[in-house]
Amino acid sequence: MSKTKDAIFLMIGDELLSGRTQDKNLTVLGKFLADKGVVLKEARVIIDDKQIIADNVNELRAKCDYLFTSGGIGPTHDDITTESIAYAFGVAATEHPDARAALDKHYQGDILNDARLKMAIVPEGASLVANHISAAPGYHIGNVFVLAGVPTIFAAMLDEVSGDLESGEPILSDSISLMMREGDIADFVTNIQASNPEVAIGSYPFIQNGKQGTNLVVRSRNKTAIAKVIGKLQSGLIAYD
Amino acid sequence: MSKTKDAIFLMIGDELLSGRTQDKNLTVLGKFLADKGVVLKEARVIIDDKQIIADNVNELRAKCDYLFTSGGIGPTHDDITTESIAYAFGVAATEHPDARAALDKHYQGDILNDARLKMAIVPEGASLVANHISAAPGYHIGNVFVLAGVPTIFAAMLDEVSGDLESGEPILSDSISLMMREGDIADFVTNIQASNPEVAIGSYPFIQNGKQGTNLVVRSRNKTAIAKVIGKLQSGLIAYD
Repeated sequence: MSKTKDAIFLMIGDELLSGRTQDKNLTVLGKFLADKGVVLKEARVIIDDKQIIADNVNELRAKCDYLFTSGGIGPTHDDITTESIAYAFGVAATEHPDARAALDKHYQGDILNDARLKMAIVPEGASLVANHISAAPGYHIGNVFVLAGVPTIFAAMLDEVSGDLESGEPILSDSISLMMREGDIADFVTNIQASNPEVAIGSYPFIQNGKQGTNLVVRSRNKTAIAKVIGKLQSGLIAYD
Repeated sequence: MSKTKDAIFLMIGDELLSGRTQDKNLTVLGKFLADKGVVLKEARVIIDDKQIIADNVNELRAKCDYLFTSGGIGPTHDDITTESIAYAFGVAATEHPDARAALDKHYQGDILNDARLKMAIVPEGASLVANHISAAPGYHIGNVFVLAGVPTIFAAMLDEVSGDLESGEPILSDSISLMMREGDIADFVTNIQASNPEVAIGSYPFIQNGKQGTNLVVRSRNKTAIAKVIGKLQSGLIAYD
């Protein structure tokens, strides 16, 4: 059996840190990778700064199988991801003929100005990731997937790169939701976790109509093990209800 | 004038990376800090792992004025933030009498079991951050603020620490929303940015009813500069409409 693959997500954009924009891509990537059996082990959000982007890309691509980035590949002055990735890899960024062709087709009869043509430029050695929504492609260089930040386009690009990832056994999960407080059941759940190391149990409090409840999530690659532990939790927790 | 203060946000929790839980705290912290004139320069999401938490805390607290963490201070087996922070600082974690008193009061007549008592334990040298929602406190050690992950509690704890931060001039912003595509106006906006370095202009595409639009956000500490640039953008962009 080959080693489980892991991934890191680097979200690029001032707007995610200023409070202006609510990120929606992290959960989408998390689910996408879990289905493929790839472990997402870290995510970072950084500002649009060439040196910071390049430093993070070089640090992170060395410590995971797949690095995904989002944001900064549009037409505007604050879209500096491509020049930063090229700088990180020590290559030039040049117009890619297929990206240019995709833009020519998409903007037929429209102005293909300098700003838009910037979106045909990718680091040398990159393979394109098609964008079926607005034509301007993402790309794949080394183990880095450079994708758009707009959530609809990010999700569509993920589908495109699906075949480029080496999948493992999907990471499965099941959960139970209880109107019991975490603190009432924590000792019991701790014991169940200790005697079932083949699963990971997560305990997440919530508040509903002013009452505290707990979601218990059981994760594993082994479906039978999940079902067994869910059963143990359910039968044991009856005593606390 | 003193140097602008900066901050980093470390979100701790497997559930944020697995796709199970949508983070809501980053935008709340981003806005809170912008109002205080503190620059949020990076955010990270990491798993519940003692060594990883400690390594990140030690790396990040050395490179910012304020490090905020969220998550992992509840009563359950997967809540390991406190032991990890104590490990990072090289101190013991012990029961804090004020935290114990807050829990005693909150759980009056209720079972204060081992799981709940864990929430009275903090690293030695930490000052408590009150939790007016569910009693179990956060805390402040060195330049690190250790807060709860549940969004309502996270936000309430932020209010508590407000007075502990050295504020600067608030970072202000104004924006205009246009039903014009980024690529049509990018060259114009690039020129406005180049001639007005005292503001930062962000350009954010959106799709509404199938049409592409752009939000232009102008940020600065200088209200007059923002108004001037918003005016330039509005008058200049009439030509593109």
